[in-house]
Amino acid sequence: MRFTSEQHLDHDVVEREFLLDEIPGILWTPAAVSAPAPLILLGHPGGLRTMYPRLAARARHCAAEGFAAATVELPGCGDRPRIAAADHARADLRRALEAGEPVDDDIVDRLVLPLVDAAVPEWRAALDALLRLPGIGGPVGHAGGVTAVGVRLAAVEPRISAALLYAGSVVPRALLEEARQVTVPLLMLLQWDDEGNDRQRALDLFDALGSAEKTLHANLGGHTGVPQFEGDDANRFFARHLR
Amino acid sequence: MRFTSEQHLDHDVVEREFLLDEIPGILWTPAAVSAPAPLILLGHPGGLRTMYPRLAARARHCAAEGFAAATVELPGCGDRPRIAAADHARADLRRALEAGEPVDDDIVDRLVLPLVDAAVPEWRAALDALLRLPGIGGPVGHAGGVTAVGVRLAAVEPRISAALLYAGSVVPRALLEEARQVTVPLLMLLQWDDEGNDRQRALDLFDALGSAEKTLHANLGGHTGVPQFEGDDANRFFARHLR
Repeated sequence: MRFTSEQHLDHDVVEREFLLDEIPGILWTPAAVSAPAPLILLGHPGGLRTMYPRLAARARHCAAEGFAAATVELPGCGDRPRIAAADHARADLRRALEAGEPVDDDIVDRLVLPLVDAAVPEWRAALDALLRLPGIGGPVGHAGGVTAVGVRLAAVEPRISAALLYAGSVVPRALLEEARQVTVPLLMLLQWDDEGNDRQRALDLFDALGSAEKTLHANLGGHTGVPQFEGDDANRFFARHLR
Repeated sequence: MRFTSEQHLDHDVVEREFLLDEIPGILWTPAAVSAPAPLILLGHPGGLRTMYPRLAARARHCAAEGFAAATVELPGCGDRPRIAAADHARADLRRALEAGEPVDDDIVDRLVLPLVDAAVPEWRAALDALLRLPGIGGPVGHAGGVTAVGVRLAAVEPRISAALLYAGSVVPRALLEEARQVTVPLLMLLQWDDEGNDRQRALDLFDALGSAEKTLHANLGGHTGVPQFEGDDANRFFARHLR
């Protein structure tokens, strides 16, 4: 892990960009901490530059609660080499959504399964490196991003103690089986009128998750309309489970 | 309104029992307040004596946030004269649930519509009396209890500024129409494995409510398994809307 930049945000948060085997990432740490900070891995749909304002806002919110936050670019996204098969599948998905057609399982599998297979080992490697840094301690939470990546990570990575999932419906059927293996406390956010996700499939995913403590927060509105108070709820959820 | 008893709970909360035209009720107020306290009407399924421990716990939680809380007995419940038709319908409902049969609309209508018709004017009369007391000020929230009573109250009582509803499914079809008239901010609590409520009908009710701000909190577990942290979430919900 090689740091490439460092800046302060509002004096309260230190933001450092890094490269981990050529994968770009960002680490945010509260400027003033005594004990090692719990770490929240911030998921996103791919494209760190585009997502930066929203990620930085979430990281600031984490830091206000005393949490460090970190993210890495997804395979095939942002400045990383494209993955032709994923681009084809994404174009097929967009065509289906624009035509108002149901999204068939084949498109979802072609789009999401290779991404999950490639991304999850990278996030775990990032976790190895991040947890070796001074000032960062376990336990670890994972929040948001591609739903299927969050499910696989929560299922296979024992260092993750709590997870917040966005209730996406673009989840391969095979991942529903993996969802049953998830046992950590979960908070799932669902946008009731999400134009890009099927509500019933999202509810089916919530139902499938194996955790004994799981909570769904559904709010009226479209994909990007998550109310601001859910950020506070997320902090309290992680505070309950990471402290 | 005639007060019949007064006691302190933990020095922090004053609990007063009252009679309002022979309807028993309880008022809890924070012992130390300067400004008039917003009031939360605490709903329940009927039977103040049986429900007292849970109601007092919720009232203490309200008082910790600076809210007054009050409740009145439902028609035909507790020490109030029975209503034969409602008792018959309740017995029919119990038989259907025990036999694992679907609860037909006729039973729900016979059980719930007369209760809603009788209870809502009483709660509004209680509100008239409570808001005349020193130390109690608007705005008013309504929390829990019989779902259909909460829906009707939120739809017709303009002094209610925010409502927390339990996601019951024993709601007459006619109330789904009234639900569309509700415009105040809502928090609905749904128990994912509620043995006495149909999940899909509860989700349909959430969908039908007309409010522009509505949030569903669904938690794993049965009817009485609402997690303790939902009490804090409820206080924050009311603090957002009643202050």
